[in-house]
Parts: sequence; structure tokens; C-alpha cells
Amino acid sequence: MLELAQSFIRNMHQELNISDVATKARLRVIEEEISQTGTYQHTTEELEYGVRVAWRNSNRCIGRLFWDKLNLIDKRSVQTPAEFEAALLHHIDYATNNGKIRPSITVFPPRNGHHTPFTILNDQLIRYTSDTLADPVKAIKPGITSKFLPIVYQHDGQLHTFELPEEKVLEVSLRHPSHPAFDDLNLAWYAVPIISGMELRIGGIIYPCAPFNGWYMESEIASRNLLDCYRYNLIEQIADSFGFDRKTTATYWRDRTLVELNYAVYHSYKSQGVAVVDHYTASKQFEKFEEQENAAGRHITGDWTWLIPPISPSLVHNFHKGYDNTYRDPNFYYRKKGYPFSG
Amino acid sequence: MLELAQSFIRNMHQELNISDVATKARLRVIEEEISQTGTYQHTTEELEYGVRVAWRNSNRCIGRLFWDKLNLIDKRSVQTPAEFEAALLHHIDYATNNGKIRPSITVFPPRNGHHTPFTILNDQLIRYTSDTLADPVKAIKPGITSKFLPIVYQHDGQLHTFELPEEKVLEVSLRHPSHPAFDDLNLAWYAVPIISGMELRIGGIIYPCAPFNGWYMESEIASRNLLDCYRYNLIEQIADSFGFDRKTTATYWRDRTLVELNYAVYHSYKSQGVAVVDHYTASKQFEKFEEQENAAGRHITGDWTWLIPPISPSLVHNFHKGYDNTYRDPNFYYRKKGYPFSG
Repeated sequence: MLELAQSFIRNMHQELNISDVATKARLRVIEEEISQTGTYQHTTEELEYGVRVAWRNSNRCIGRLFWDKLNLIDKRSVQTPAEFEAALLHHIDYATNNGKIRPSITVFPPRNGHHTPFTILNDQLIRYTSDTLADPVKAIKPGITSKFLPIVYQHDGQLHTFELPEEKVLEVSLRHPSHPAFDDLNLAWYAVPIISGMELRIGGIIYPCAPFNGWYMESEIASRNLLDCYRYNLIEQIADSFGFDRKTTATYWRDRTLVELNYAVYHSYKSQGVAVVDHYTASKQFEKFEEQENAAGRHITGDWTWLIPPISPSLVHNFHKGYDNTYRDPNFYYRKKGYPFSG
Repeated sequence: MLELAQSFIRNMHQELNISDVATKARLRVIEEEISQTGTYQHTTEELEYGVRVAWRNSNRCIGRLFWDKLNLIDKRSVQTPAEFEAALLHHIDYATNNGKIRPSITVFPPRNGHHTPFTILNDQLIRYTSDTLADPVKAIKPGITSKFLPIVYQHDGQLHTFELPEEKVLEVSLRHPSHPAFDDLNLAWYAVPIISGMELRIGGIIYPCAPFNGWYMESEIASRNLLDCYRYNLIEQIADSFGFDRKTTATYWRDRTLVELNYAVYHSYKSQGVAVVDHYTASKQFEKFEEQENAAGRHITGDWTWLIPPISPSLVHNFHKGYDNTYRDPNFYYRKKGYPFSG
């Protein structure tokens, strides 16, 4: 832990141009704290810097241009289930912000030795119960009938269930500007994806519960959630609503449906005032991120298989580049497998 | 070489249910041949099996369902430039077959010690001179004005240039069934992609010149050759011909252009009687290949980054799978870098 802490503090202080004197002083304090208690506490500045760099290091995330705009909600002092549940609702409110989504992370108490104060089993705070995605909550609580999966969390070794009040969840009705039959499908998706199934690691400290969010890229909803064959798998119904001829593959009805659905999702979010980015703009933003990182003399890491969009990938620059998929701390990791993952 | 030869022969004989007696006899002959001459000669059956398995092992190739339909043109006895050039024209004729493309490979003499009888510098036998692709031929022969790049090959240490007769190259005029303005762009592409810049390795023998072909998947032409920003980069002109509004990204004009162009390429090849496969069908064929290989008890290797199509990738099964990218012999390798590559 001491080594990881030292490396984190040195990197941070170097990047933020903090004086050698201050660095040495801080390292002395941490060393003493670890030798006395077995761990150490991040200052608010360290935690804020740590969560932002964890985002910057998220190899799979296309949205990293905004890494230093991540809002830290420091909830390390939360102790009771009531405080915990209130903090989750606060995250949803704060992040949703009536559609003007704020990229945010709520950090709950760190692991302390073998003691893990809180963990959330859901992979996202907001998930439809009808979603065919294998969410760990479904295995634990089969037969749920509410619209959204309840949040199942572990506190001091006990499972708790927290029903999400429906009115807290902003949703977007999916509409197509020129295909009313699509509107009649009455599809909707929630506004804010809040990843809750990963742990955050900063300088040797593990935060097993640190839900975070950005905003959606349209193709996450359109290409993947609604069309993936093992997800909602709605390609036939949606193609029919657009009036495409499904008699043969040669009509390109699948590709046409994909484009129109991405178009519909993007414009639905936009017209209902909910932040969203299209895959092409996201890639342009990532190109700018790469330029910024190069200018700062930092080596960029990335996972090509996630950075390419699932629609028209060869039209964006990422497709034509290689990326070094090394994982660096601070970062987010899947809790179960110790496998790294991004926002 | 002996070890590689033994392993190749044993695998082949096991797969083809050849008797142990015959296997031992063949291995004895090869061992003696290597000890006397430093190398050995493949029988026609071994060469045919070898080239087919080299295709089966081509991790980047989506078309491997047809691996055992590869036609071997055995030109190991070719000695002179005149014979060599005639053999190249024969390959083009035989493979083109008036549009009913035959997957074919012409195998020229193997490397013998340090002696390499023939190598072709072009990456494909047929390439437009106007192509922006960095072909080694352009570095060697700048200022070419013919429609097709001449074939530049090395024979006994000397460079030869062979002009491809234009009438030998079947081309497809690119037309869109419902957009005459697209037809006015007068785009065309050649019928048969014949990879010529790779070497073939079978059981320790290296064939530095073994051009091979399948037929095109439509997106190789539409998504990549014509639209890649470092290739013909025609997305704006083509979008305009379709009448798409390029004022903002939010019209999805890029994705719409991609779909219509793939559609146009596919139907142009089809309507002009030239074999082609669409990306969705190619992926279905690959799924069948995977089933066949599983049924035969063989482990499938593949390169995910090449197996996913550059249009609507998440709509095909490959996208949702992992592939083991181990390279196995027999296989095709880039000559320069010793880097493996597929058809």
C-alpha cells in the first residue's frame, strides 16, 4: 500500500506542480498513518484528482475528453443504510439535473482490511426489470415486477433491498421525426447510465462502492441495448415500424434500421432536453482528448474493441489506429473478476 | 525443417484418415530427402491440402467456410519471366471466370536456401494506379500513368515490370438502383481481389510467391476502399449524389451514405454477374464455418478486429464473441515483417 500511495502522490503532485517540500511532507504523513493504522485517508483534493484520473485511465471509454469535469460527491462518512440510500437518490438527482447531465461520482467508504462497508450488486443504478441483461440482482431476487430493478446492496455482510422511486428516474420517449409508426412502439430509455458494479482504486486504497455516470452515446442504446440479439432484440419490430422490406438481406433492412434507430434515439434525447452524444462527435471529442494528452506528454491507453462505435466504425479515426490496452491506476475494476472496465 | 514437415504430414494424414503405414513411409522419404538436399518437395496432394489449410487458418478472413474449395494452380515448375507472366494472366482469367469467381491460388517455386526464384512487390495483382494506398510498387516506380499498376516482380535478384493488359481485368460499374446522380459519378471497381504480397508457409517450406483470391465482401470496397479517409475518401461526393444534407452530423448523412454505398456496390456486382457477398451473409457463413470446425473437433482461431464488418458490426454474431488470435501453420504471412495476415 505504501508504494502505491507514494506513486500516486508523486504523480499527482508532479502533474499539479506542487512543491517538493509539500510532497515530502505529505508522504511523511501518509507513511506514518499507514504504519500506525494499516491504511491512510485521501484528502478531498487527492480523492477528486484520483477519481478524475481513474476516468482518464478508463481504456474503454470514448468520453474521456471531459475527465477533469467529473464532479466528486464525497460520501466517505456514510455509515447507515438510510444515509446510503439517501446518497444514492442524491446522486441520481444531482447527475440527472433535469436532463443537463452532470458527470458525477459518489464515493462511499473505502475497504478497511477485510471490512467492506457498502457494495452495490446492480451493474447500473437504473436498470429496467424487463431488461434481458443478466444482472446479478435478478439471480438474487427473481420475480421482480416493478418497472426498475430494486437496488440490492450489501452492508456489513447483510443484503438490503432499496426500491427506486419511479419518479426519480428521468426517461426519454423514443420518437422518430418522420416515422409515426415507430412512435407507436412506445419505446423509452432512461436518461442517465450510472455504473455501480465496479470498484475504484486510487493509490492503494480500494473504494468498493463508487457509482459514477457520464451521459449516453446514442449507439449504446440504439445499436446495443435495443438491438443486440441477447438484449431487447427488437430489430424486426423496429424495421417493420420504419416500413423496411425484410424479405431478403439484400434490401439492407438491418443496416437501414440501425441508422434510423440511432437517429431516432439521438433526436429523442436532444428534443427532450437530455444530454446525449452521437458516435461521430464522440469520436471527434476523443481525438481532441488524444491531442490534449499528447500535448501534456502523457501516453494514451485504450481498448480498440470498445472505442470503435457499433455503427459505421470505419468512418471514425479510432478504427484506423492501434491502442495500448495497458491498465494504469487509478482506475475502475469489475469487483468480481478483478477485471478492468471503463465508464 | 524436418520437425515442421513431420508435424504437417502427421496432421494431414490424421485428418485425411491415411494409414499409419503410409504416413511412416512418407516421413521416411521426406527425412531422407531433407538429409540429402536440405529440403523436400510436396506432393500435389500435400500442396493442395496445405494451401487449403493455410486459408482455414487465416485468422483475419471471414470467408473461410469455403476453405476446401480453394483451387490449386501448381506452377512450381515455372522458371522464366515469360512463363511467370503467362501464369499470372492465367490466374486472372481462371479466377475471374466471367464473374463466376473461383477461389484460386497459384503456387510458384519455393525458396531454396537463400534462393528466392520469384516474388511480387504489388500487394494485389490488380490495383488502380489512382489508388491512394501505399503500394510498394509506387515507391519503386513513381509517375505511372496506366490505369492499373504494373506488376513489379523480382526474379533471380532482378526487378521486372509487367504491364497488365486492361482487357484482362473485369470491372464492375457502380450503380444505385434509385439514385441516378450516383451513377453519374462513374465509379467502378475491379471484380477480383488477388493478394500477392504474402508468402505461404507449409510444413517448413516457404513459397514466397503464391497469389490467391476469393471474392469481395461488399464492405471492403464500399466501407473501406472508397470511403476510408486515407483511401479514395469519397464520402462527401457520394453523399451529395444521394442528396443527403451534410450541414450537420445530426442528419446522420455519413451513416446513410455508408449504407447506400454498400447497397449500391452489392447490387452492382450482383446485377453485372460478378460474385460478391454482403457482410451479413458473410458472417452467417462464418458462423457455419465455426460450427463445422467445432464438429470436426478443431479449435478455431480468429482476429476479432478483422472479422467484424466495418458496417453495423454489432448486428453480426462475431461482434459478440472472443477469438483466439494464435497463428498456426500452414498460413500466409506478410513477407516484409514476418507478420501474419489473411485473405
